[in-house]
Amino acid sequence: MQFGTVATRGTTTAAVRTPDGWRALPAPDLSAYLAAGGRLDASTPLGDLLEDVEVLAPLPHPGKVVCCGLNYAEHIRETGRELPTHPTLFAKYADSLVGPGDDICLPADVDVDWEAELAVVVGAPLRGADRATAAAAIAGWTVANDVSVRDWQYRTLQWFQGKAWDRSTPTGPVVVTPDEVDPAAGLTITCRVDGEEVQRDSTKTLVFDAPDLLAYISTFTVLRPGDLVLTGTPGGVGTARDPQRFLADGEVLETEVEGIGLLRNTIRLTDDSVQT
Amino acid sequence: MQFGTVATRGTTTAAVRTPDGWRALPAPDLSAYLAAGGRLDASTPLGDLLEDVEVLAPLPHPGKVVCCGLNYAEHIRETGRELPTHPTLFAKYADSLVGPGDDICLPADVDVDWEAELAVVVGAPLRGADRATAAAAIAGWTVANDVSVRDWQYRTLQWFQGKAWDRSTPTGPVVVTPDEVDPAAGLTITCRVDGEEVQRDSTKTLVFDAPDLLAYISTFTVLRPGDLVLTGTPGGVGTARDPQRFLADGEVLETEVEGIGLLRNTIRLTDDSVQT
Repeated sequence: MQFGTVATRGTTTAAVRTPDGWRALPAPDLSAYLAAGGRLDASTPLGDLLEDVEVLAPLPHPGKVVCCGLNYAEHIRETGRELPTHPTLFAKYADSLVGPGDDICLPADVDVDWEAELAVVVGAPLRGADRATAAAAIAGWTVANDVSVRDWQYRTLQWFQGKAWDRSTPTGPVVVTPDEVDPAAGLTITCRVDGEEVQRDSTKTLVFDAPDLLAYISTFTVLRPGDLVLTGTPGGVGTARDPQRFLADGEVLETEVEGIGLLRNTIRLTDDSVQT
Repeated sequence: MQFGTVATRGTTTAAVRTPDGWRALPAPDLSAYLAAGGRLDASTPLGDLLEDVEVLAPLPHPGKVVCCGLNYAEHIRETGRELPTHPTLFAKYADSLVGPGDDICLPADVDVDWEAELAVVVGAPLRGADRATAAAAIAGWTVANDVSVRDWQYRTLQWFQGKAWDRSTPTGPVVVTPDEVDPAAGLTITCRVDGEEVQRDSTKTLVFDAPDLLAYISTFTVLRPGDLVLTGTPGGVGTARDPQRFLADGEVLETEVEGIGLLRNTIRLTDDSVQT
């Protein structure tokens, strides 16, 4: 099944995609639906068929967005590092998330890079979970691009300030339930800039897969329904190229995970991007 | 003025400390009070005098808790680094916060260290703010200890997994308004373990002060009323000692900033600390 958050006729709603089209679920968005105990299965009576639908970021306000760096073997090698024994984790806030077709607005004078990622949506509270418990708590999968401001990321030892820019991380278009796709079996993940492929790998080559990551994170902090974990990006990022390549104003960034969906976001680099 | 969140007779409330004692403000806690547009001044009609009060974490659910590392010159030197040109920032989530008298419960087999810190409470929305705007948006000051699980912090390049343990960061006891204290003029910050002083410095030696930090953070992400920024810790942490020293089960951690208040938390290291 496929779930999401959609805008329709001046309002937003959590919704499920059926063969006929999108049908409403009883919450203003999928974050609220999951927080209220809703499940991503057939247990909820479906609402009306929706018309004039625009698909938004599926989870507009997760309590936690935890990201894993250095998690595809090839990407680790391009950064000159050894395969890790523990996942490298950092946080961002819900303010960083935008939808599958939104513009990504950043200042004109920063180095903006792509990071196509598979993201996992938490479906049940997890603390001190083992791998099996964590696997059973996966509500579904979505696509993300951990768009990174590299010059800020590398100003200091901690990546956060390059990763947590508001409205910089596209997500969506839908959350696909685990009965439909199995990243461990291998889903192709790709990233394109103005149609040119810049990243391609398979989710089966993740060093730490989603159950690993959820279990590990749950050792130190609780994960709750609707929380989002970004599992890391494959090789091919712009900062690791020779010469380096960063995103230019007007370029179109496409991020796709096989069987889940496609994000298509235009990069807008303007000094008006930061407003109070 | 001094504001906080208190428990009284089976409920909690935002409150203001008056010469007679604590009086209720119209919100269940100070996070909710600030989110609803409440101000930390005399503008709100005071409620009843409260009895049987227990002082809790003043801000139980900030949207953002942004922390600065390496921000006191002496602490930077003890880590072997040069004075920074940009603040080193990382995030934690509200789940890490506990109150001024709560136990800090962590597993028995990790290296737990102290980091006494001055914390600043945001009082107005900030994005793209300059230093003056940021300074004017400071609602008040509180005390924090960024208790750190050092072995997890240094497992990877990113500190987050050593900093974001649930219920590990004591805060409080109150939020003191800027008319009462001026950290830029120098407030003594101290940390004691079972009565032995392990950190002492003055807040006037911060490399990046609170207006600097709020303005810098607001370049990439919005700050909102009730958000918390931890300004970094002075020299004297356990991991930088020779030999290293970490906190033991039952030790009492005291964290104090002159003119603001004192946290007194007992360390509980037990394998029961991580529960689903």
